[in-house]
Order: sequence, then structure tokens, then C-alpha cells
Amino acid sequence: MDTQGIAILGSTGSIGCNTMSVVESFRDGRFRVVALAAGRNVERLAEQVERHRPELVAVEDEECAERLKDELRKRGVSLPRLAVGEAGLVEVATHDAARTVVSATVGAVGFVPTLRALEAGKRVALANKETLVIAGELMTKAAEASGAELLPVDSEHNALHQCLRGERREEVRRLILTASGGPFREKSLSAMTGATVEEAMRHPTWSMGAKITIDSATLMNKGLEVIEARWLFGFGADEIDVVVHPESVVHSMIELVDGSVIAQLGVTDMRHAIQYALTYPERHASAALPSLDLTKFGALHFEPPDFERFPSLRLAYRALRAGGTLPAALNAANEEAVSAFLDNRIRLTDIPRVTESVMDAHQTRPVSSLEVVLAVDREARAAAAAEIARLKEGSKAVA
Amino acid sequence: MDTQGIAILGSTGSIGCNTMSVVESFRDGRFRVVALAAGRNVERLAEQVERHRPELVAVEDEECAERLKDELRKRGVSLPRLAVGEAGLVEVATHDAARTVVSATVGAVGFVPTLRALEAGKRVALANKETLVIAGELMTKAAEASGAELLPVDSEHNALHQCLRGERREEVRRLILTASGGPFREKSLSAMTGATVEEAMRHPTWSMGAKITIDSATLMNKGLEVIEARWLFGFGADEIDVVVHPESVVHSMIELVDGSVIAQLGVTDMRHAIQYALTYPERHASAALPSLDLTKFGALHFEPPDFERFPSLRLAYRALRAGGTLPAALNAANEEAVSAFLDNRIRLTDIPRVTESVMDAHQTRPVSSLEVVLAVDREARAAAAAEIARLKEGSKAVA
Repeated sequence: MDTQGIAILGSTGSIGCNTMSVVESFRDGRFRVVALAAGRNVERLAEQVERHRPELVAVEDEECAERLKDELRKRGVSLPRLAVGEAGLVEVATHDAARTVVSATVGAVGFVPTLRALEAGKRVALANKETLVIAGELMTKAAEASGAELLPVDSEHNALHQCLRGERREEVRRLILTASGGPFREKSLSAMTGATVEEAMRHPTWSMGAKITIDSATLMNKGLEVIEARWLFGFGADEIDVVVHPESVVHSMIELVDGSVIAQLGVTDMRHAIQYALTYPERHASAALPSLDLTKFGALHFEPPDFERFPSLRLAYRALRAGGTLPAALNAANEEAVSAFLDNRIRLTDIPRVTESVMDAHQTRPVSSLEVVLAVDREARAAAAAEIARLKEGSKAVA
Repeated sequence: MDTQGIAILGSTGSIGCNTMSVVESFRDGRFRVVALAAGRNVERLAEQVERHRPELVAVEDEECAERLKDELRKRGVSLPRLAVGEAGLVEVATHDAARTVVSATVGAVGFVPTLRALEAGKRVALANKETLVIAGELMTKAAEASGAELLPVDSEHNALHQCLRGERREEVRRLILTASGGPFREKSLSAMTGATVEEAMRHPTWSMGAKITIDSATLMNKGLEVIEARWLFGFGADEIDVVVHPESVVHSMIELVDGSVIAQLGVTDMRHAIQYALTYPERHASAALPSLDLTKFGALHFEPPDFERFPSLRLAYRALRAGGTLPAALNAANEEAVSAFLDNRIRLTDIPRVTESVMDAHQTRPVSSLEVVLAVDREARAAAAAEIARLKEGSKAVA
């Protein structure tokens, strides 16, 4: 058995920490953490470096690098090679000793490093869905060119990957992504308008980072996943459906042309999908992974999504249908709007308003290069910031 | 595209009629019905002969053959070759022009013809689960020797077959058969004791023949399916679980070693499984097959089976663990007891009592040959008849 070198982009976030947990659960030396990239959580990163002794570590900037050095000195841990910023992320993503790169940074920052990993022929275990949303075409082309594998770590896409294993593409009629529905599934539009950050952060089934949790509350997360599914599996907007399933036990489903439906089920523990992506095409037993006992659930429910209360989902379908740079504009605008909501600068229901206004003003063009996508990302963020400021002014005027 | 010749054992029963419906839904000449075997329902058989003009038809006896001739003359349909009895069934099962044999007779009568079909290298689409219960070892050995494919038409096993498509045997931890729970799922043991035939025939989700419907009410059907699964997929008694799922939307599931669960879902329409078995490894779109809309269900429920109220399920596990001829004895005794219940000779709860008493007295031996199995079948039926008579005497004495 070869040891598989693992590089992690976003090692101190929830996917990063769960990846560590999966790696540690294999005591046979199957996996070795060779490179880590994190943002500003230097304490946790230092712990991870102490436990795994990677050869390379990247942090957000020089100040973080200095703090990391201090932390490691305090622990008596010898310093690995240190790198900073986007260049550091790219170095981690293309590290020679890494066969698999877990791409788990939040937002657009993971875009370039993930592309470089695919170009370098690494297996990419992708948790950063924005990467495919903004540049799915570039990513999948890079993977095809180098022969790199792109394996989804999102539980829904991981489920779809599992469901599709035994099937031929042309015999699959549609993908059915399940959505928990978030904390506002049964709330009125007016309750959503007045929702606090704390209320929006109460995800019913999954414990995740702030950005994705807010996206789950608006269903933008599911919208981004619809776009992600398009690139991972090659299905069109009309072949990808969403069904709300509050218990999150069925992680996603496919419908075959003969009407049969194949579903993947499991407990809500990200380590399942992470391990699957690391060990694929093999599956391994793991004491760390709990089993699903369906009889413990009172009932499983399924309902259609409400596009009126959750306009973000509608916007995502619109962006997917339009194609080109519109999904990148949607993603950037949404990311800025979520950030503004988390800072209490706008209301929850303003998030899709900001996104839609940026999309309306966006001149969609083909995703012809990296530069185009990055330019759209900047433009859309600026446009979103302006719209957020305008909304804030408006709410002040009203108050 | 080659035309695939289809032979049907039990053409006038519910699986047989649904097979006709599937064949007729393909208007491209993909399938042709070449041979039919039925019991005594001569009118329906004559209709089928008129529509499909098979080359060979078998009925139960000479009297049925004469009636069929009359029917066909009345309709102005030229006579196909006619055969009768078990020899007729075998002739249909091994008909040269048949590539696939749908084995859908009720009870042990399908045993020899199905074995002959497998020996002849036919693909067998198996709806007659008793065949595998009483002689799974002989059947699977015959299939291996000739290279015949054995494809399950039972919705549960068909589901398992679909779930297993993309997986390696050693990476599958267990099979999970779903059971509707039957009409007595929420009834007390005393309500079950006094149940009428009509009450027991009210299956909550599937419309099927009388024998299988009663077996569903006692959960013996699920027990037989556990044994069937053992032979179809090579899993042991401890690797096959049953979960009660009243809505019958999830047809069955598998659990992988990494804790992931793959399920197959669909509407409760046997044509799905039949078509799957006929077209495998391909899948085909069909206007005749309705799609599943999960949002139409209020909720899906799952609960553990109650081995106390449903001792038949426990008996099936006991027979599977003991192996050898005990499953054949269980099957024969149960078949006699169900028949006695349908004739109002014994109570519903007497069915497992009869079966258990026959099993207790049975001397289990290896399934070394066809003759052994047939002898056990006869012995067990005689023992069951004696026990049924004893119970009847007892109830008269009480009354």
C-alpha cells in the first residue's frame, strides 16, 4: 500500500478539521498530511502542524506567519517551510508530495489554487463549491486535460457521485438534490425579513461554517449546489431538481430513465464524504464513522422548495441557464451580501435583493479565461458593495 | 437490435400480466412472447395467445387444454403447440426461441422448470421466490455452470440488485430489505388471531396474488425474501436485515462498510422490476412506468420488525441459519398452512404454528439433489396437513 500524501486548503475550518479526523482514523499509514493552508486561525494550525508535521504550511499573510512561528517555537515543534497569501495556497495545492488536495477554503479565495491543483493532475476533493460555480468550465477542462479526478466532498454531490457509480450517463434522467430547508423552512416571509444573524445561524441538521450556514438559510447554498452539480456531472438546469427534506438523511438522489430512483443516505457527518473522496474507488470500514439507524427517525419528509420565499434558489437557476460569467457574478454578489448580513449591515432578505440587482446589471460574457472570471468577481463585489451601501442608506432614511 | 424471445411461466397471474404489459409498451419489436405457461385461467390465457401468438402454450392439464382449444377456435386464433402439466412448464422454460424466462408461478410448482431454464443457460427473471428458498444452492450452481443470469423481479431484490450495481461485494456490509408490515402492522396479537381472510388480504401498498398477500400479512413473505437474498447475492443471515417501512417507497437498501447507505426507491408498480430484469444491463424510458414524486408522500416511516407478533420472520431466519433442507420444509409447511387459512380451515396465527411444528420435527439434511428437495417438499406438506387437521380437531373440540 502506497502512502497517499494529502494537502489541505482551509485546514482549520470544519472540513479541514474533519479531514484531519479521517486521516487520523486510519492507523495504517495510508494517508499522510504533507501540506496545510489556513487563514488566520494560527493556534489551531499550530496544533495541526504539531500532530502531523507537514512539510509545507501556508497562512494568510506575514503577520500570521510570524504568529505561527511563535506558536510552534512555544510547542518546541521544528518549523516547516512557510508560505503566505495566494502564492502560499498555490504552493500547497501543487506540492509534489500531495496526491490529493482537499479544497476547503471558504469563498472565491480557493479558486486559483484549486485550478492549479487540477492542472497539476492532483485528485481534488472539493468542498469549495464556489470554485465550480464561478469557473466550472475552466476547472473541468483543466481536469480533463491533466487527467485529474474531481471528487465532491459536499454531502449532496458526494451522494450523487455514489448513486451514479453503477449507472450510464445516458440512462440517468435527472439529479435530485435534497435541501434541509434551513431554519426558515416553516417561517413566513415577514419572519425572515426580521431574522437575526443568530436565528439564521441555527441550521437544523448540519454544523458548518458561517457563510455556508447563511447560504443554507436563504437556499442559495442549494442554488450553488445546482450549478456545482452541472459541472461535476454534466447535467443541464432542467435535469437538476431540488427537493426539501428537513431530516437530511437522504443526502441526494438520481432518477433513471426507467423511473427508478437511487438514493444515498447517511448520518449528517461530513467525515463520510471526506473519507469517500480520499479512499475512492475503495470504501473502508471506520470506527470513526457512525452507522445510520433509520428506525431512530420518526419520519422522513419531502416537499417542493418555495421559490417565492427563497428567491436565491431561483437566481441560481437563472444564472445556470444564462451560463457564461453570470454564475460568477451571482456568487460574488451573494458572498458580499452574506458578509454584510453577518455584520448586521443588511437584512437576511436583502441578500437575494443585492444578488439580483448585481445580476440584472451584469453583462454576461463567456468564461474565456481566468482573468475574465477574476475581473467579474471584482466587478460584482464592487457592485454588491454599492448596492449594500444604498440599502443601508435607505434603511437609515426609513428609520 | 436483436429481438429477445420471452417465455412466461405463470402468464395469467399478476406478474405474468404485468410482463405482458411491459412487453407491449416496447413498440420497437425488442421483445417477443414466444411461450406461455398458465394454470387454469384459460380465458385470460386465450386473450394473451390472441394478442401475442406464441409458438408454445402450456396449461395445467388435458381438460384445460381442451377448454383453451375451444376458446381459441371461438376467437378464430390458430392453435399454437400445446403442452400440459410439469412437462409443459419445462417445455416452456426451455423453449429454444426464449432468451429470457419469466418465472412467475406461485409456490413450489415453478421449481423444476426454473432449474431447467437455468441449466439451459436462459436468463431467468425470477418472481417465484420459493424456487430459491427451497433449492437456492442447486439453482445458483446450475446458473454458474451454464452461465445463466438470475435476475430478481421481486421489488425488494430488484432494488438490491440496482443498489449493488456500482459496488464491490467485499465493501458491502449488509442488505436491508424493507417490509410494508402488512395489514396487521399496528394490530394486536389478539386482533391477528381473529383476523378474517378478507382482513388479511388488505395489503396496504401492493396489489398481488393471494398466497403472497397472506405471506405479507404474516411477514413470512419477508422471511422468504431474506432467504432468497442469501442466494441471489451471497450474504449470510447476519448480513441481511429487515426494516418495516409502511409506505413501500424505499424498495430496499444496502449498507456499505463505510456506513453509507444506498437505497432504491420507486412507485409500487411491478412493471418497474419486470422491465429492469428484461432490459438489464440497459435501462429504458417507458411511458407506461410512472415516476415517483416523493413530495406527494406526507412522510416515510421506518421501524424495526416485531418478531413476537410475526414469528414467521423468526422462523425464516432460523431456517436460513440451519441451512440444508430446513428452508424447503419451512416453505412447504407455510404454503400448506396459507392454503388452509384461505379455506378458513385454520386461523392466521396458526400459520406460523403449523410451520414451526413441521420445522421442529424435520430432520435437516444437505440439499444434495433435486430428489432430496422434492421429497422434503412432499414430507413437509404431509406433516403440515396432519398438523392442520390436528388444529382443526382442537378448535372443534373447543367450539
